[in-house]
Amino acid sequence: MGQILIKNAYIVTMNATNQVFTNGSILVDYDKIIAVGKVDKKLIKKSAETINAKGKYVLPGFVNTHVHTSQQLGRGLGDDVNLLTWLHERIWPYESNMTEEDSYISTLLCCLEQIRAGVTSFAEPGGQFVSGMVKAVTEAGLRGKLAKSVMDCGEGLPEIWQRSTQDELDKQEEDIRKYHNTADGRVQIWVGLRTIFNNSDDLIIKSKELADKYNVGLHMHVAEVKDEIDYTMAVYGEPTVTHLNKLGVLDKNFLAVHTVWLTDEEVELFRAKKVKVSHNPAAAMRVLGFAKIPKMLKEGICVSIGTDGAPSSNRMDMVDELWLTSLIHKGWRLDPTVMKAEEILEMATKNGAKALLDEDSYGSLEPGKKADLIIINPDSASMLPLHDPIANLVTAMHSSNVESTLCNGQWLMKKRIIQTLDEKAILKEAQKRADAIRKRAGIELPDRFPTITF
Amino acid sequence: MGQILIKNAYIVTMNATNQVFTNGSILVDYDKIIAVGKVDKKLIKKSAETINAKGKYVLPGFVNTHVHTSQQLGRGLGDDVNLLTWLHERIWPYESNMTEEDSYISTLLCCLEQIRAGVTSFAEPGGQFVSGMVKAVTEAGLRGKLAKSVMDCGEGLPEIWQRSTQDELDKQEEDIRKYHNTADGRVQIWVGLRTIFNNSDDLIIKSKELADKYNVGLHMHVAEVKDEIDYTMAVYGEPTVTHLNKLGVLDKNFLAVHTVWLTDEEVELFRAKKVKVSHNPAAAMRVLGFAKIPKMLKEGICVSIGTDGAPSSNRMDMVDELWLTSLIHKGWRLDPTVMKAEEILEMATKNGAKALLDEDSYGSLEPGKKADLIIINPDSASMLPLHDPIANLVTAMHSSNVESTLCNGQWLMKKRIIQTLDEKAILKEAQKRADAIRKRAGIELPDRFPTITF
Repeated sequence: MGQILIKNAYIVTMNATNQVFTNGSILVDYDKIIAVGKVDKKLIKKSAETINAKGKYVLPGFVNTHVHTSQQLGRGLGDDVNLLTWLHERIWPYESNMTEEDSYISTLLCCLEQIRAGVTSFAEPGGQFVSGMVKAVTEAGLRGKLAKSVMDCGEGLPEIWQRSTQDELDKQEEDIRKYHNTADGRVQIWVGLRTIFNNSDDLIIKSKELADKYNVGLHMHVAEVKDEIDYTMAVYGEPTVTHLNKLGVLDKNFLAVHTVWLTDEEVELFRAKKVKVSHNPAAAMRVLGFAKIPKMLKEGICVSIGTDGAPSSNRMDMVDELWLTSLIHKGWRLDPTVMKAEEILEMATKNGAKALLDEDSYGSLEPGKKADLIIINPDSASMLPLHDPIANLVTAMHSSNVESTLCNGQWLMKKRIIQTLDEKAILKEAQKRADAIRKRAGIELPDRFPTITF
Repeated sequence: MGQILIKNAYIVTMNATNQVFTNGSILVDYDKIIAVGKVDKKLIKKSAETINAKGKYVLPGFVNTHVHTSQQLGRGLGDDVNLLTWLHERIWPYESNMTEEDSYISTLLCCLEQIRAGVTSFAEPGGQFVSGMVKAVTEAGLRGKLAKSVMDCGEGLPEIWQRSTQDELDKQEEDIRKYHNTADGRVQIWVGLRTIFNNSDDLIIKSKELADKYNVGLHMHVAEVKDEIDYTMAVYGEPTVTHLNKLGVLDKNFLAVHTVWLTDEEVELFRAKKVKVSHNPAAAMRVLGFAKIPKMLKEGICVSIGTDGAPSSNRMDMVDELWLTSLIHKGWRLDPTVMKAEEILEMATKNGAKALLDEDSYGSLEPGKKADLIIINPDSASMLPLHDPIANLVTAMHSSNVESTLCNGQWLMKKRIIQTLDEKAILKEAQKRADAIRKRAGIELPDRFPTITF
């Protein structure tokens, strides 16, 4: 890695004032951006790799703040079934039959999809094998906040997952000591909490203490389904977010995912405590319901975007999620003016970085920031014409328009060719392992159509 | 065009029982399918082009039952604005400043996007220049039902569109006589009606008579926005569909688009009269609201899928619309079991063919049907693994997985390369014309971000 000069580009900086340079340059030196807009020629070394990006956009890499990399091999396992079947007959049997090597391959497959969709940084809410995920993210070249899937109570849990509160905390502390800030700082370990169904008050409080001790984030599914609120009302006499507040864990390092079922008072709690939100529109549409995202943004809450896991919304594609975010809040409100394209770009870049406690490192194209950026080629029948170039990035772009992905100064994809991984070998291995896990787990999927094999 | 033999494919026939052949063959002879499943070797000529589709799916081409090809150059003109601004300040000025040649280029651009997303047949609800659209569809190799944009009343109409009822009917009859069943029958002319805001009772009744006279369909936006129902209640004392029924036009050759605001009694009218429905989920989410699609399907109404126009939902991509259809009816109902993948495939293939009155010609892969089919390559990080292969077609596939598109026995796209059109030249011309129309129409789009040009 040396210098990279990208010139003649339509640069969407996402800096404090969201400046756009219609014909600007960016100079990358090693892992950092050192100039944006007009670049002083004296800064450019002769050895710099020069890219003429005429007619193309340059944006900060997208930040996917919620993606289950260890569930990638389970894509399509839970389509068109109710939530109980999804969890108890499909996802738990699947996940509890995975090995460390499966988790590694699953994460590699997920990283491929992330890189192809322009993601440079993501947060994984918790898999069984942090070691396997660490290995994959290190090789892929992405930034990842990884966590263990943490559960210390709840009904119907597979036997191998029945662990004590202290065991769950100890294992996470061990992971933090072993892996946090490895791979040039790209790999970080966060503290995971699955859901309030499976996490005791004691675990929740001590997890927050653990996160604070190591100055990392806490990643939890919050107020996800209506059943969850019925449960917390019955058990605690108050809804999820009110209860979490009583436990004292709502804070600026708390990343709350989905957050569909919040009262207005609970939205206000999020604002006051500076809680970060990950909005996952595909999962919301498919099973959860619609979060009060426009209201949260209006109140200044940091809302970011995530894809969830492959068995929950299938397309782990941030570009699709941007488009969905632009759609799902408008029609049923009968107001097509809410959730404007520019807000959605903020959610996917700088809000994402802030949600991952990295706003000083990336999320915008500015001198001194890490060299995490994507080059977008709009020259396709599905993205042209450009009347409103910023809008088209959200409402017409597909991940196939993402031409190149640079993270930490390293090309992860160049002209649609993955640079860091052997894509073909991973696809083959992924299908093989996916089939093997399904068989081990004894999951039978009914044929949707009558099937004839000669 | 001679014979084409596709072998070793996962064939999703969409025939009467939706049979799937996991390792089947298809033999195409000239413009027709002559064998599916096991192919008798005696039928295969030595000159047949043979394609080994191992690991790939073959499906009927998708049918897009509502796409404004003449609005393709207006993509992004109406993002994040209210409906009145959208119509009066963006779309009408734009459309009324288009020339016949613009309409031709717009339709070519739209055809490119259709072919790339696996569409082989579509219905266009009405542009200003049927002649321009006919020329484009003829060259592209697709099947199209084309119509004129027909309006004889309504407030705020641009002057050049203020025409009499008889003029509108005469022009359509002229188009039918000139263009209907040209290009080997691929190009057909239908009768268009824009909306009840802009169509008099007299025009609606006579349009139905015209459609019946020539044995073609009638394509109309129906009960699209809540304002429309407020309008029909005020003017006619009854909602749109009830009024259309009173006029006697609801029939099996009536294609009703959007159909968001229907009472249960009106859904029942659709069933009884065998009206066909085009569901456009992206447009529904963005501005209209949610139609009672699961109920309509349950009652046996023929519901198909459409993309609408580029200024309404931006992505003119049927594969994305399949995915959206699988999402939007589940979450807010808190029922992830409605709208199963297999129903959605029916909507996009055989229901589409039926909606376009072509169920005897295409929509399924069966001997005797037209050779309209697509080859899908799932071998990508975004579509694998395949646990539930039929579901993945709906919930994980992107249009980039559509490898080849065959229509009427002719390759329109092969291995992602367009065969019938000069794609590069069209993209360039499209951007140039789009800019020119915007300038002629005097449409100013505010900068979304502060923009600096050196």
